[in-house]
Amino acid sequence: MRIRHALLAFAAGACAVGQASAEEGMWTFNRFPAEQVQKAYGFKPDQKWLDGVRQASVRLAQGCSGSFVSPQGLVMTNHHCVHECVEQLSTPKKDLVEGGFWAKTQKDETTCPDLEVNNLVAITDVTARVQKAMEGKSDQAANEARKAEMSKIEKECATGDDVRCDVVSLYNGGIYDLYKYRRYQDVRLVFAPELGIAFFGGDPDNFMFPRFTLDAAFLRVYENGAPAKIEHYFPWSPAGTKEGELTFVSGHPGSTSRLQTVAEIESWRDFGLVPRLLYLAEIRGALTEYAKRGKEQERHSKGMLFGVENALKAFRGEAHALFQPGLMAQKRAQEKTLRDRVMGDKAMATQYGGAWEAVAKAQALWRQYQKRYTMLESRRGFSSDLYDQARTLVRASAELAKPNEQRLREYNDANLPALKQGLFSAAPIYDEFEIFRLSWSLTKLREALGPDDPFVKQVLGKESPEQLAVRVVKGSKLKDPKVRRQLFEGGAAAIEASRDPMIQLAKLVDPEARAIRKKMEDEVEAPVKRAHEQIAKARFAVEGTNSYPDATFTLRLSYGSVKGWEEEGKPVPPYTTFAGAYERHTGAEPFALPKSWLDAKSKVDLATPMNFVTTNDIIGGNSGSPVINRDAQIVGLIFDGNIHSLGGDYGFDAKLNRSVAVDSRAIAHALEKVYGADRLAQELRGGK
Amino acid sequence: MRIRHALLAFAAGACAVGQASAEEGMWTFNRFPAEQVQKAYGFKPDQKWLDGVRQASVRLAQGCSGSFVSPQGLVMTNHHCVHECVEQLSTPKKDLVEGGFWAKTQKDETTCPDLEVNNLVAITDVTARVQKAMEGKSDQAANEARKAEMSKIEKECATGDDVRCDVVSLYNGGIYDLYKYRRYQDVRLVFAPELGIAFFGGDPDNFMFPRFTLDAAFLRVYENGAPAKIEHYFPWSPAGTKEGELTFVSGHPGSTSRLQTVAEIESWRDFGLVPRLLYLAEIRGALTEYAKRGKEQERHSKGMLFGVENALKAFRGEAHALFQPGLMAQKRAQEKTLRDRVMGDKAMATQYGGAWEAVAKAQALWRQYQKRYTMLESRRGFSSDLYDQARTLVRASAELAKPNEQRLREYNDANLPALKQGLFSAAPIYDEFEIFRLSWSLTKLREALGPDDPFVKQVLGKESPEQLAVRVVKGSKLKDPKVRRQLFEGGAAAIEASRDPMIQLAKLVDPEARAIRKKMEDEVEAPVKRAHEQIAKARFAVEGTNSYPDATFTLRLSYGSVKGWEEEGKPVPPYTTFAGAYERHTGAEPFALPKSWLDAKSKVDLATPMNFVTTNDIIGGNSGSPVINRDAQIVGLIFDGNIHSLGGDYGFDAKLNRSVAVDSRAIAHALEKVYGADRLAQELRGGK
Repeated sequence: MRIRHALLAFAAGACAVGQASAEEGMWTFNRFPAEQVQKAYGFKPDQKWLDGVRQASVRLAQGCSGSFVSPQGLVMTNHHCVHECVEQLSTPKKDLVEGGFWAKTQKDETTCPDLEVNNLVAITDVTARVQKAMEGKSDQAANEARKAEMSKIEKECATGDDVRCDVVSLYNGGIYDLYKYRRYQDVRLVFAPELGIAFFGGDPDNFMFPRFTLDAAFLRVYENGAPAKIEHYFPWSPAGTKEGELTFVSGHPGSTSRLQTVAEIESWRDFGLVPRLLYLAEIRGALTEYAKRGKEQERHSKGMLFGVENALKAFRGEAHALFQPGLMAQKRAQEKTLRDRVMGDKAMATQYGGAWEAVAKAQALWRQYQKRYTMLESRRGFSSDLYDQARTLVRASAELAKPNEQRLREYNDANLPALKQGLFSAAPIYDEFEIFRLSWSLTKLREALGPDDPFVKQVLGKESPEQLAVRVVKGSKLKDPKVRRQLFEGGAAAIEASRDPMIQLAKLVDPEARAIRKKMEDEVEAPVKRAHEQIAKARFAVEGTNSYPDATFTLRLSYGSVKGWEEEGKPVPPYTTFAGAYERHTGAEPFALPKSWLDAKSKVDLATPMNFVTTNDIIGGNSGSPVINRDAQIVGLIFDGNIHSLGGDYGFDAKLNRSVAVDSRAIAHALEKVYGADRLAQELRGGK
Repeated sequence: MRIRHALLAFAAGACAVGQASAEEGMWTFNRFPAEQVQKAYGFKPDQKWLDGVRQASVRLAQGCSGSFVSPQGLVMTNHHCVHECVEQLSTPKKDLVEGGFWAKTQKDETTCPDLEVNNLVAITDVTARVQKAMEGKSDQAANEARKAEMSKIEKECATGDDVRCDVVSLYNGGIYDLYKYRRYQDVRLVFAPELGIAFFGGDPDNFMFPRFTLDAAFLRVYENGAPAKIEHYFPWSPAGTKEGELTFVSGHPGSTSRLQTVAEIESWRDFGLVPRLLYLAEIRGALTEYAKRGKEQERHSKGMLFGVENALKAFRGEAHALFQPGLMAQKRAQEKTLRDRVMGDKAMATQYGGAWEAVAKAQALWRQYQKRYTMLESRRGFSSDLYDQARTLVRASAELAKPNEQRLREYNDANLPALKQGLFSAAPIYDEFEIFRLSWSLTKLREALGPDDPFVKQVLGKESPEQLAVRVVKGSKLKDPKVRRQLFEGGAAAIEASRDPMIQLAKLVDPEARAIRKKMEDEVEAPVKRAHEQIAKARFAVEGTNSYPDATFTLRLSYGSVKGWEEEGKPVPPYTTFAGAYERHTGAEPFALPKSWLDAKSKVDLATPMNFVTTNDIIGGNSGSPVINRDAQIVGLIFDGNIHSLGGDYGFDAKLNRSVAVDSRAIAHALEKVYGADRLAQELRGGK
């Protein structure tokens, strides 16, 4: 459920934004429907409550959510959100993925090389400024002006490396907000259980319920080498939840498409989704076999396999939802209602009437460009950490020489701290795995564009994908972060002079990748963005602003309650227990409990709640979100959605859609009885 | 293009059967549109011509086409049709897939353990008899009576092991014909080139053109240990073809769905096709990696990988065709026209009017059953040669005890020779590859039905898929054909007593597999077959019988001509040459010519035509079909269709759809100059 492997799904009776059913909605904090909650649950969150919750919530910049759970900078999130770090900190002698990690003393807390934690400090409406910059311009010019203005605003805001500023578009361009975050880049691992319990049930159980996992981990943010002092954090609930109890989820849903037009959804469904699924299915098969080469290879590839399987299952669910005639019929009906209203009003018809056609027209170009775009610019044809580093170096050398506003967005000044963290990261890179990924993805490049495509010929020459991959990986010095730093600091001259074969490959690809990106931005993104803004305005005019925007990896609050559902006529109870985990244990992966749990069986209270489901509306990116009660105490930790949630990208079915959480009581009990992690358990309790 | 990996496709302007465009049509020999050919090309095949062509055409029972090309039983077909045999005849010391095979003397010709060649002897219309058996019965009873009557007719016809009799349904049940074949089970390999040239360009070039392969092979059928004497065969054309020249293809297209209703096509597209694609994509990834375990593993798995990649590409093409709005809109319009005509006639409305709804209704059940059906009954959850053998033994022990007409169709007396050939085959089975396939497919079984499905729990128990696979493969004695023969001959008692773990697994699965098959047959197949027959009758009534039936792996004749096409405004010429093959050679697979070709470069005439395209309407199963001229001489050998042919399952676009063939001149020239296969070249020439 990280944002990269977006959580998606069924949703037979999905509802439109603006006609939100009971508990649908990923609400912004400034438009939260407190009255609605009051009516349903007799509790009305006030501004102080909302402010406190907002300030105690955090985001993992790589694609997850989290929360402060002590005044000493302790952050709770999912194991699967820190899996990559656990993998990076492992060695052939000490596999922390398999064996888990627990810092007995504060000194043992170990830096995660790539993690960044963001804590939202302020939101400023900058709609007027962005829209002014676009005024009177053609689609393309407006699109460029929009981005330039956004970069400008972000730069003005980002006064230091510890400040992160993002201008985000909400309601598909109806509103532009500046989100200002406190940025923490010194993030250390405190506790991560064994993968065997964190991902008990593995892929077969993913997106399923009943469920029995401890998909939990703890990090700590540091300031100047010491634990950061945190004012706002969530205390731990001693009691957990009861069935039917009101729950809130505060987190960062990554992306939804509930406001997309029918033309866009159909275009994606029929021409984007299936190739994406096939790419994932094939690499899944390859990774599964790759892992059998040996223990080390398995360790290096496990994180990627997990991500791939998660995405695959999510997109399958999405496909299932989109191929049901019901959902698309509903989307069509909703769109027609809005369009009819617009066309029935002369002023609106003139201003907004052409928007849907404009979107549909751009889809023809999207279909034409998307294959090349995903292969080159999204790098699906060049899957390799070293290649990513090389590309960043090549692009940075060109982009940083330009004025801030004229750069590609990801190279603007406000983004540099994140960029540098990745570029200078000490995370290990493994040659064999690099060669495996790169050679495989190069075959996909050739397959997608064809062996006779001039660009493919230019890349491969007389080499096979494997020969090329071996040559550029083995010949590259970029594994060494010092080399990357030198190249970065050396700028264009250093890149120009470099004989590193990976740099040369990235240089070879860059012009073609930029060209297809430019086409995509000018000919698809530009008209679609404009049309979306028109539709957003039409929607505000017709439906008012009592709605929530599509998810954009910005902080949202959802409300709901602990509640099971009915599956083929049979009730699914909302809680599972420790006892269930032991019953499900077969000894064979992925149903093998780790030794610590088997050893602790006699010590634990088997009736302790393990996982539970709620009606909160969440999506990928919400992973690691705290589940809190009306007293803003931690009662759970979101880690998944049920199978019916997998159409959530397009709608929400209150009857079936459920979020899945680890129970706070399971976390506390396991820390004490299974792991003897008393220091951590006390810190959580002391946080009360 | 073998039937198992059906060739499918685009086809923007696909035409309906009955409104056939110029060269569309896979015609039966008794309804061939000779007048139409006369009008277009000034040549009218007469009965004698048609009879001769029919008698010289053969079928490879495993899913390909072929032709007699000498009076000594010499059969021409594709390399990819005999790939499995070449793999089976290989050893760790002698890899014939890589190195090719050429029997210098007749004594060197080597038996292919699993191949069966069929030569059509007679066609008898048995429609009245089959329909009479079904008269006045409910859908289910009629469906059973239909199959029983078919088995009865086949048994009466099959007077010996060398006679094969199949009752086939044409026009979706409009006509039932009895096809009587001479069956050859002693089939020996004469010549197979190296895979490097037989499949030059590999998967990237598959379904593409220009193309440069020698996808050709020669077999010989034997009778009583000596080459069979053949009366009707195709002589070799000395001159080949010219652009625009009339060409015929006589072969066995496997299956098309051009007569399916819209409800069936949509159901397959939205709920069957994507899972099938994902299954194929994932096993492709796994197989590609498996092959890297070592030279032997690569050799064992290459044939399966080829089949998987071929199917994957074909189904992708099908998906592309079905997601284009144009094709489905056309299908809908055609269906509406026919239904309107039916509903406009009171008698027809009463008799046939409900058929389309009946098909649509059955689709809901199909969707519900298909996952379990494909996993259990189609064995997608149990991919293993040993399991297949075990299942055949288990089923045979039960079925052969029943009267012929009450058996599952594949166990009726007429089918026993084919069944025994497979069961007693000497083809090698490799433990490691078996374990790989079975454990992988068991994970798919668990994934499709869920780990909590009672059947899945029963199969896996406390084992992981891999543990189970290792246990049943390593513990099984079924690798030995003698053991299989003992079990087969021992009947129910031997199976009952067997402790062989693979037999036990097959016994465990059998009741559940039979149960889902019964549901599928009674609740889906039965009403759909009845409805199809009604639609067929309605179509005959409205459109007459001047049409061709959907492909059913029965002999068909198509006509067309040598002709390129236009691709994005640029002409694609119809011929390639030897020179092109050498130009395409990079030295890296799959663009590496074998040593024999590199060595022969100075000896060959580089201007020799290599491959060519024609407008003939073909599909998977047509692989290995002869391309003949008006004198019924061999001018080419079908091995593929172009990318636009990949919607051919649903329609034919005369503008873009092309069949791809090896030029007869390439075969003759290569035999002489590259392989020095003079004995074979002379036999072909002598055949004139």
